[in-house]
Amino acid sequence: MSEVSEFPIPETHVLAVASHVVYGYVGNTMATFVMQSLGCEVSSINTVQLRYGQAKGTRATASEISDLYQGLRDSYLDSFDMMLSGYLPGAAAVEAVAFFWVLDPVMGDNGKLYVAEDVVPAYKALIKDADLILPNQFEAETLSGVKIVDMDSLKLAISTLHETYHVPHIMITSITLPTPGATASLAVVGSTATTNSEPRMFSIRIPAIDCFFSGTGDMFAALLLVRFREAVFNTPGLSETDAWRSDNDVKATELPLAQAAEKVLASMHAVLTKTKESRDLELELYKKKRATGTDTPDGKKMKLVTSKATEVRLVRNLGSLKNPNVQFRAEDV
Amino acid sequence: MSEVSEFPIPETHVLAVASHVVYGYVGNTMATFVMQSLGCEVSSINTVQLRYGQAKGTRATASEISDLYQGLRDSYLDSFDMMLSGYLPGAAAVEAVAFFWVLDPVMGDNGKLYVAEDVVPAYKALIKDADLILPNQFEAETLSGVKIVDMDSLKLAISTLHETYHVPHIMITSITLPTPGATASLAVVGSTATTNSEPRMFSIRIPAIDCFFSGTGDMFAALLLVRFREAVFNTPGLSETDAWRSDNDVKATELPLAQAAEKVLASMHAVLTKTKESRDLELELYKKKRATGTDTPDGKKMKLVTSKATEVRLVRNLGSLKNPNVQFRAEDV
Repeated sequence: MSEVSEFPIPETHVLAVASHVVYGYVGNTMATFVMQSLGCEVSSINTVQLRYGQAKGTRATASEISDLYQGLRDSYLDSFDMMLSGYLPGAAAVEAVAFFWVLDPVMGDNGKLYVAEDVVPAYKALIKDADLILPNQFEAETLSGVKIVDMDSLKLAISTLHETYHVPHIMITSITLPTPGATASLAVVGSTATTNSEPRMFSIRIPAIDCFFSGTGDMFAALLLVRFREAVFNTPGLSETDAWRSDNDVKATELPLAQAAEKVLASMHAVLTKTKESRDLELELYKKKRATGTDTPDGKKMKLVTSKATEVRLVRNLGSLKNPNVQFRAEDV
Repeated sequence: MSEVSEFPIPETHVLAVASHVVYGYVGNTMATFVMQSLGCEVSSINTVQLRYGQAKGTRATASEISDLYQGLRDSYLDSFDMMLSGYLPGAAAVEAVAFFWVLDPVMGDNGKLYVAEDVVPAYKALIKDADLILPNQFEAETLSGVKIVDMDSLKLAISTLHETYHVPHIMITSITLPTPGATASLAVVGSTATTNSEPRMFSIRIPAIDCFFSGTGDMFAALLLVRFREAVFNTPGLSETDAWRSDNDVKATELPLAQAAEKVLASMHAVLTKTKESRDLELELYKKKRATGTDTPDGKKMKLVTSKATEVRLVRNLGSLKNPNVQFRAEDV
């Protein structure tokens, strides 16, 4: 009890439904630890146990997942405050439950679907019950039917998502718009709808790190869940409202969602910058060892060594999660 | 890198093989978070995904486990420093690997076996490859064939375990010897054998907390793994030796294992004391609500409410894990 002040949020119990990966921080392995470190109690249902980067392993069926969830309810343990999930096998079991649902509609990226075709309508049916969705640009396009090529189409896509699915909070986790002459940068764009479904949009621009990391989507989702809970909790009366929708007179850049995203991006930028440094060091050492030793790796081995070296350095960078140093601010769109 | 000093140990990669429980801190759910919080990278293989307190759920087969492990090796990811496991399906895949293996031979308690009969010889075969074993009193009796009734039989049991299995480090996690007239207390008894297999025994007495908690064995194992690594690391040259066996002139109470156990018990006593306080408060509130409301729970519901209230308060008591306040000291046996 004396330690509560260490944590940004009041006691919060989260149900996390995602995949478990044996090695590396992806899916529930990433999300659970991030949320626990920031003070959440997390119950995790693992939909599949995977080997590293492979779609092979022990898969739970929809009925097993549904059964696990039913087991929680039977045991009077379903007193969750929030849920974080992607696609939800056995969704009927949880739809009726009243918690704040953060849904990451994982379907694809960079113009390509990487789930089965029938997952798209399944997500469309789920989103009407979600409180906050976290699509990337491609997923926002797929769900809204609007191709995002400039600010106007971005606004249209977000309006369409608010209107079509009645989802109060939207955060598009990566947007790349052609900006001739500018240096590489990424943006996230968020919006909390007013009571009459008008979007309130903000964007946060962040410098791109030239490196591919795994699990960053799960890290973003877990951090945003905690930081949004924190920002809502710090707004008097807001946590008692339905779906935590700010009063209509709150400006876009002052939204709890915007404040939360600023902290999330600060943490992520710090952790990924450190990861990139450690990666470069590890690969340099490996190359030196290779040059002097008998180890002559083939392309496949080099790829594995590289992806291992690029694992997000999470456990030993908890300070950056707990104490974000906000540098990138929300701007009006 | 600037944050390394936050952690008691150098970078340490642990493979944890245990069950996953959806709700509550037991098995890998407990062990993984404890080790991560203290700075370990943890890869966890979940042998079974269980509902709360039930042996029902998604079970991975021995060949699936073995396949998961083989997957790690194929991907050049098997650079583990330590392993924490109970019974290990598909053990052949890991036996050859050179890491420090902490084995918790989970078989039963209080005079009763709660695994199948054939698990006993399976454990006996595994222990020859383990570096540190963590039996409780009943398991130590089962493995040594010595009934522990007094100090002499305790010494005989530990000598027998060192000699029979050539296991260098033993920690008996709970010993209750009849001590007429004394207040209830528990003891742990540990030993690191000398190079000529002589035991060096110490004991640590702790006040008993009058409450049954789940997952304390997993918590003990995870904490001991980290604190033993720390104590060994702080002993110059010891981490480079085989099985981290202290020089023969090191006294029992000065062993890294003894120093580690002192910290582990300090953390556990603090967390469990706080858990008991929270539990009592939660049950009192529940009973008040029940007295005024329409909720008249049956015996089954009351049992569930109680066991939920008794869940170890881990996430919000990290300070007690990280900064143990040692009060109970190792004594010579």
